[in-house]
Amino acid sequence: MERDTSDLFKEFKELTASEFFRRNKQMLGFSGKIRSLTIVFHELITNSLDACEEAGILPDITIELKRLGKDHYLLKHADNGPGIPEEFITKVYCQMFAGSKFRNIQSRGQQGLGCSGCVLLSQMTTGQPVKIRSRYKDGDELKGVEMTVKLDVKKNTGIILDRKEFETDRTGSGIEIEFKDVSYSMSEQGAYEYIRRTVIGNPHARIVFKDPSGRKYTFERATNEIPPLPKEVLPHPKGVTADDIIYLCKSTNKKRFKNLLMDSLSRVSAAKIKEIEEATGIDMNKRPKSITWKEAEAVVNQFDKMKFMAPPTSGLKPIGNEQIEKGINEILLPEFSTAITRKPQAYRGGVSFIIEAGIAYGGKAGRLIGNQRKAEIMRFANRVPLTFDQGSCAITEALKSIDWRRYGIRDLDNAPITVFVNIISTNVPYLSTGKQSVAPEPEIVREIRQATMKIARKLEKYIRTKKAAKNEEMRAKIFEDLVPVVIKQSALLAEKDVPEYDHVMDEVTHKAKIMDMKNRLKQPEIEPMKIKTEEPKMRLKTEVDEDFDEE
Amino acid sequence: MERDTSDLFKEFKELTASEFFRRNKQMLGFSGKIRSLTIVFHELITNSLDACEEAGILPDITIELKRLGKDHYLLKHADNGPGIPEEFITKVYCQMFAGSKFRNIQSRGQQGLGCSGCVLLSQMTTGQPVKIRSRYKDGDELKGVEMTVKLDVKKNTGIILDRKEFETDRTGSGIEIEFKDVSYSMSEQGAYEYIRRTVIGNPHARIVFKDPSGRKYTFERATNEIPPLPKEVLPHPKGVTADDIIYLCKSTNKKRFKNLLMDSLSRVSAAKIKEIEEATGIDMNKRPKSITWKEAEAVVNQFDKMKFMAPPTSGLKPIGNEQIEKGINEILLPEFSTAITRKPQAYRGGVSFIIEAGIAYGGKAGRLIGNQRKAEIMRFANRVPLTFDQGSCAITEALKSIDWRRYGIRDLDNAPITVFVNIISTNVPYLSTGKQSVAPEPEIVREIRQATMKIARKLEKYIRTKKAAKNEEMRAKIFEDLVPVVIKQSALLAEKDVPEYDHVMDEVTHKAKIMDMKNRLKQPEIEPMKIKTEEPKMRLKTEVDEDFDEE
Repeated sequence: MERDTSDLFKEFKELTASEFFRRNKQMLGFSGKIRSLTIVFHELITNSLDACEEAGILPDITIELKRLGKDHYLLKHADNGPGIPEEFITKVYCQMFAGSKFRNIQSRGQQGLGCSGCVLLSQMTTGQPVKIRSRYKDGDELKGVEMTVKLDVKKNTGIILDRKEFETDRTGSGIEIEFKDVSYSMSEQGAYEYIRRTVIGNPHARIVFKDPSGRKYTFERATNEIPPLPKEVLPHPKGVTADDIIYLCKSTNKKRFKNLLMDSLSRVSAAKIKEIEEATGIDMNKRPKSITWKEAEAVVNQFDKMKFMAPPTSGLKPIGNEQIEKGINEILLPEFSTAITRKPQAYRGGVSFIIEAGIAYGGKAGRLIGNQRKAEIMRFANRVPLTFDQGSCAITEALKSIDWRRYGIRDLDNAPITVFVNIISTNVPYLSTGKQSVAPEPEIVREIRQATMKIARKLEKYIRTKKAAKNEEMRAKIFEDLVPVVIKQSALLAEKDVPEYDHVMDEVTHKAKIMDMKNRLKQPEIEPMKIKTEEPKMRLKTEVDEDFDEE
Repeated sequence: MERDTSDLFKEFKELTASEFFRRNKQMLGFSGKIRSLTIVFHELITNSLDACEEAGILPDITIELKRLGKDHYLLKHADNGPGIPEEFITKVYCQMFAGSKFRNIQSRGQQGLGCSGCVLLSQMTTGQPVKIRSRYKDGDELKGVEMTVKLDVKKNTGIILDRKEFETDRTGSGIEIEFKDVSYSMSEQGAYEYIRRTVIGNPHARIVFKDPSGRKYTFERATNEIPPLPKEVLPHPKGVTADDIIYLCKSTNKKRFKNLLMDSLSRVSAAKIKEIEEATGIDMNKRPKSITWKEAEAVVNQFDKMKFMAPPTSGLKPIGNEQIEKGINEILLPEFSTAITRKPQAYRGGVSFIIEAGIAYGGKAGRLIGNQRKAEIMRFANRVPLTFDQGSCAITEALKSIDWRRYGIRDLDNAPITVFVNIISTNVPYLSTGKQSVAPEPEIVREIRQATMKIARKLEKYIRTKKAAKNEEMRAKIFEDLVPVVIKQSALLAEKDVPEYDHVMDEVTHKAKIMDMKNRLKQPEIEPMKIKTEEPKMRLKTEVDEDFDEE
């Protein structure tokens, strides 16, 4: 039976972004109980780290997770960031696609979904409003405001249920938010591991976490250096599309096309403008609004043919190989470790990125599965741990493509090794909304391979030396056991005194060589990470709670 | 240096859905040149199949892909579906989060992003508008309208540049749309393979495809049966959350809570209402709008404790094992094939789904890599081929977890085998916006395993019999070669005539047994798929084009 066209369109609907994600929460990364909670931690922590970094503050983050019932938790999160001005509170927490991070800047979050996604999940699973506390500077004044809000899904806005002001002597923001259908886990994909990796990637952050059993972990910062503020960098001509140029032309108030190009893109000088004008015949004094698609395309094609200085990389702030080594040494206590921070490269012609890689071998490196340590890959993007979707990630692809046997690792999966990779970029090409994997752009995959192979060669040398030292020692052991017997027996037979033979022995057993090898194998003394763990004081529970209660 | 809070929020912006996806096109599946084009084919084809199915029409789809330059194509797509009423055209093609598929119905698409996503990609890469042609029934009248439209990214709406009416004697819709930065490929993830798999999963569809070289492929339908129209099924009480109940209460115009529950959920009878009232103490005659979260939660908890009939599965329309076998036989010409359509099951307590699985072995099954056929997994959801993100998919996970050696496959990766899995549900839990992988819900993974192992046992029997037959034949060959010589020589020695020994021979060589085995191994005659391939008629190019030009 055929149906009428108009019948089929009776049900036509338009959804708001909130309604859309209410129906498709897996697109925000909320699928599975453990993963959902980890994503909540991820959104709140990255927001705090970004806010502190932009404001030039050493981050101090406290998180408390209280179990209220089966799969039911109350999460209290607070930071010492710049806070949120009152008029933006509902936009940040209750409106999807709203945010301050849409610039061309290296930041952890950038998609305007994080906080409002958490509020949506809370509301969908508990029906409860959330409590938000913000302390912020308004001119010279410090203001404090506490709000109880809900998200109006049908309108994609916030509803303020309650509001009060309070006095404060510092800045920061905090949230109290309930969830059901989530679960706390110590597994690799759980919330605890997420915090541990965050600390490795952000040695300047201090995180205090109280878990549902009441145990309090204090991860002290390993450095007091505030990471330099990443700068907004102008897009490089090799990275823009005709669509970008049209978009710029529509949004600008510049009067001349050439000024728009010089001011909106990097590395475009007056000389370059002249070159473009001559090659394309386009009048560079035209009004930007009159630029056609064809003209924009001609300019982009001309960009492709021209030579420009490499994209500026002042906007990229890597962790640095020393900090990475410090981070992995303190947490993994490996017998060998090394790290590298590479020079900036560009993908898609003009988006610059930096790859950092580290290897930890032996000690507590790798994952402990049963009694055996297996390989562990720690992926980071702009210092944020990537926990899920490793299968499709550029980092996984690059590491799997390396022939590890060439570096002394016969079977990567079963080696006691942690490989750390961090990609730094103003524009990490994430594969999905959950920002859990990096698109395998050829330049990125190649650069990860190069970085890893470079440090893997050091590992190979270490493993080779270790093996050789072991062989030498075994050989020496045989001489040490036999030579004295032979000498003594010979002396006995010859009826002579046993001669001094230490130097002969040292020579035969290659003592100097072994000492040298051992010296080369020696690692600097590592001071273990100061993770203070406090067991719950059952009788003084309110006292312990005080650290987290803000008022 | 600390920065002021207000500085940090100067850049605060609100984006429309179109602006958001313009910045994050990878979330629509558009990443990589080959993948981008395949996703475009996917969106347009699934839209046509859904529209035809809803209207009870046997789908007839034509696609022509013309190469205009390097990585630059013009795509013409047309179907014989119900068309789109004029007032909905810009909503369907130029507005994100708008659509008619947000119901609880088994359909291929359901997220209101598909067509507008393609238009966005076209506009971003070419700056060109798209041409849309719709022929639809308005009452008793057939109307035809052609529009040239652009997408206003900042407003998330359409702009009509040109519009004309034309006369028509049928329904259908079509689009002409240009893309750059995409590429056509014959690889497993390319557009051609996407069409081939669509035909396997939709034997009722006829697809004519003209590729960029001018070669025209005609995939005739294997069956003239219109698949039954999937029905909208009411959600099952075991599958709803408190949030769903609150959402229903807010959207209804029913006067009493009990009527809302009985009319909006399946399997909720007056007797069940009484049971709920007694257990929870909630007045079931209350106005829905006055229901609190606590009450909604109490009702859901009560649902959990109660017994209900299994969810209705009348809304689920599987392909059917015969049709699957037909599909894989015609295309893969295997030496052995089998398929199964399982009974409905439920995940997350109340969302019903059906798993269908098929195996093809030998012949053209598997992927040809170099000279060797390797295993191939064909994943489908509601008959739609899933081409990407296989790593995280429930289907991959389930198949990899099977111990294939138990089924006569020593090394799955290197066997000449195609495994087909289709999941049918009103609510497939996709993992990402691109709808390319299914969340590994435990019930779904288990059911895929069960279905596949069931048919794998048949494969094992086939492989075992084939091997045994081969052994028997080798044994028989030895007797057939030797016995006549021995008998003849014996007769010569004994100076007697050579006796009749055929029946002895048959017995010794187990002739009957071998015949029986061969019979069991015999496959039904397969008529290969009618894929008509026409090479381009270079001199008569306009003539070939005529099939695609609609006016």
